[in-house]
Amino acid sequence: MKQRLFTPGPTTVPEEVLLEMARPIIHHRSKAFAELFGKVLEDLKYLFQTENPVLTLTSSGTGAMETAVVNLLARKDTALVIRGGKFGERWGELCEAYGIRCVPVDVEWGDAVDPEEVGRALKEHPEVKVVFATYSETSTGVLHDVKALAEVAKKAGVLLVVDAISSLGAHPLPMDEWGVDVVLTGSQKGLMLPPGMAFISLSEKAWEAVKRSDLPKYYWDLRKARSSLAKGQTPYTPAVSLIVGLARSLRTIREIGLEALWRRHARHAEATRRAVQALGLELFARAPSNVLTIVRAPEGVDGKALLKAAQAYGVTFAGGQEGLSGKVVRITHLGYVDDFDAISAVAALERALRDVGWKVPMGKGIAAAQEVLARE
Amino acid sequence: MKQRLFTPGPTTVPEEVLLEMARPIIHHRSKAFAELFGKVLEDLKYLFQTENPVLTLTSSGTGAMETAVVNLLARKDTALVIRGGKFGERWGELCEAYGIRCVPVDVEWGDAVDPEEVGRALKEHPEVKVVFATYSETSTGVLHDVKALAEVAKKAGVLLVVDAISSLGAHPLPMDEWGVDVVLTGSQKGLMLPPGMAFISLSEKAWEAVKRSDLPKYYWDLRKARSSLAKGQTPYTPAVSLIVGLARSLRTIREIGLEALWRRHARHAEATRRAVQALGLELFARAPSNVLTIVRAPEGVDGKALLKAAQAYGVTFAGGQEGLSGKVVRITHLGYVDDFDAISAVAALERALRDVGWKVPMGKGIAAAQEVLARE
Repeated sequence: MKQRLFTPGPTTVPEEVLLEMARPIIHHRSKAFAELFGKVLEDLKYLFQTENPVLTLTSSGTGAMETAVVNLLARKDTALVIRGGKFGERWGELCEAYGIRCVPVDVEWGDAVDPEEVGRALKEHPEVKVVFATYSETSTGVLHDVKALAEVAKKAGVLLVVDAISSLGAHPLPMDEWGVDVVLTGSQKGLMLPPGMAFISLSEKAWEAVKRSDLPKYYWDLRKARSSLAKGQTPYTPAVSLIVGLARSLRTIREIGLEALWRRHARHAEATRRAVQALGLELFARAPSNVLTIVRAPEGVDGKALLKAAQAYGVTFAGGQEGLSGKVVRITHLGYVDDFDAISAVAALERALRDVGWKVPMGKGIAAAQEVLARE
Repeated sequence: MKQRLFTPGPTTVPEEVLLEMARPIIHHRSKAFAELFGKVLEDLKYLFQTENPVLTLTSSGTGAMETAVVNLLARKDTALVIRGGKFGERWGELCEAYGIRCVPVDVEWGDAVDPEEVGRALKEHPEVKVVFATYSETSTGVLHDVKALAEVAKKAGVLLVVDAISSLGAHPLPMDEWGVDVVLTGSQKGLMLPPGMAFISLSEKAWEAVKRSDLPKYYWDLRKARSSLAKGQTPYTPAVSLIVGLARSLRTIREIGLEALWRRHARHAEATRRAVQALGLELFARAPSNVLTIVRAPEGVDGKALLKAAQAYGVTFAGGQEGLSGKVVRITHLGYVDDFDAISAVAALERALRDVGWKVPMGKGIAAAQEVLARE
C-alpha cells in the first residue's frame, strides 16, 4: 500500500534527495566534499538568515540543544527556561543535567508564552544569563512569539536560544534581523532529509559567552567546530551521505525561496485547520503553528484508535505525547508536502473518524481545505 | 573516472545497501521500524559477540568514546589511557575534558602496547577505575593485543574499554569470551555504511559502574538508552535511513560469517604487506593491523605527492596524521573490499610511485599480492 507520512519528523524525503544520497560515498577530506560542503555552508546561512557561520553536528536535534547548553553557560550559572510542552521541558532537563539553576516560566500546554511574563521574570532574576525557548512546540502545536522574546531578551541583556528544530523553513526566523542569539535545527524536519544531523548558529554575542563557558564538553565543543569550519571541515567524521542529500535539499529550498516556503506551510496549515473545524472538531493549540495541526479526538473517541484507523489507509499521523497520549491526533504539514498531500491527510482523517464510529459528513473537511488551497 | 576509496572510513558502501537506504523513509515509532530494529539489535549482538545489549547512538565514533567516559566514571576518578597514536590520545583528551585524572601509558607510534607494562602501571596506581584502549589504531596501523589487556584488567579488577571503531568486523573481538567490558564502534568502517552512527555495548560489570557515575550527561546517558531499548526504541530520533542500511549490511555480515570476514581482512592485509615489501618499501607498523597498511614514503618522496598521484587514477588513499603528515600512505582494506580491489590498490600505488619519480618495477607488487590472494 502507498505510504504517506504526516509525522513531525522524520518527514517525507524528496525522491531526488534519496537518489542523491544513494550515490557512491565520497571521502570527507576530499576536494569533491570540500566543494560540496562549501556550498552547503552558504546555503545554510540563507536558511538561517544569518551572516554567522552555521555549524553541523552529527546527532539528533537534542544533541544540538545540549551543545547550546554546554557552550553558553558556566558552572553555577542560571538560565530561564520556557516550558510549554515536552520540548520546552527538555531545555530544563538539559540544564539540570549540568547543574545549571533554572528559572522556569511555565505555560499551559496549548498556550503560547506571554513575552511580558518572561520580561518580568528576567527583572526578578537578574542573575539569568540565557533564555531557552521553543519556536514551534511539536508536542502542543503552538508557535511562540520569538520576535517578541528576542526584544525582551535584548532589553534584559541576556542571550536568547531558540529550538527551531521543527520550524526552520516553515516559519520566518530571520535570526540576525530579530537578534536571536542562537538558533538550532535538525535534518529530518523542514530540511526534508532523513534524521541524523543537526545545525546550530551563534551570534557574535553568543560566541563571547562560549569563551567564558567552563562546562565539560568534547564532542559538542563549538570552538573546535568553528576552527574546523574555517578549513571547510568538521572536527569528526560527518554524516557524509546526509550532507550530500543536504546539498540537494538546500538547492531546492533556494529554488523555491524561503518566502514561498513559509507561505506554502501557512496555506497547508490554514487548510487543515479549516477542514478540522468544518468537521466539527476542536483544535488543541490556541496559538497554532504552521508546522503541525493538533486535533482533539472527539468525545468518546480514542485518539490511538483513530491513528490506527488512518494507518489502515497507509497514512501515518502522530499521537499525543505525555499527558495528551490518546487524546489528540497530530497532523504535520512540514517539508515535502503539496496541496494534494494536505488534502489526502484530511481525507484520511475523515475516513478514520468514520471507521471508529464517529458520525462525520464525508467530504466536508476536504471541501473546506480545497476552498483555502484553490484560492487565488 | 571510476573512483575507488581505500580510506579508513568512510569505506565503500555496497550497492545494495545504498539502494536500501534510498527507499522512502519510515517513521521510527512505526511497527515496520520496530521489526527492523529488533532484527538489527540481534545482529549487532552477533557482531559484538555478546549477550549484552548493543546500544545505538546518532553520532560519529568519537561520540561513543565520550559516552563511555561520561557513563563509566565519576568525578575525581582516575583512568589509565593507552596512548600509541591519535586515537589513543583522544581517550586522554576526553578524560581531561571531564576532569578525570589520567595515568598515561605512552607507546611509540608504530608499536603495540606491552600488556605487562599496563599491568605494572595498574599496580602502581590502584586508584585507576578504567583502562581506555584502542584495538586497531588507525593513525599508526597497529593492532594492540586486546585479549592480553583484558586479562591484565581483569586481574587488577578494573574495567577495560576498547575503541574498536575501525576494527570490529575486521579482527576477532569476542567481547564476552575475552572479558572486555566495553566495546564501541562506528558505522562507516567494517559495517560498510555511511558515517553517522556509533554503537556501544557494556558488560554487566560496566553497567554497575554506570550506576555510580555522576559525570554530567544527557544525550549520552546510557541509562536512558537502555530503558528505551527495552521498548525497541532509541531515546531520541535515530538516523532512520542509516539503520535501514545497517539492517542490510548486518544481513550480509551474517551471510558471510564473522570468521570468513576476519580471514578476508587478513588475506587482503597480508597481500598488501607482501606487495609493499616486494616494491622495496617499508611498513610503518611493527605490529600491523589487518584494517589498514601504512607504508613509509621512500626517501626523497613526498607522501602528499604520492597521494595526489594516486588520486589522478581515481584512487583515494589516506595520508599520515599529525607527525606522520607527508611521510606515509595509508592503504585501507576494510569492509566491502574484494581481492581485485586489493590488487587495484597496489597497482595504483605502483603507478603513483613511478609518477612521482621513484624507480619501481611495474607489476612486482601486484604479483606478490596475487601470490597471496590466489593461494588455495
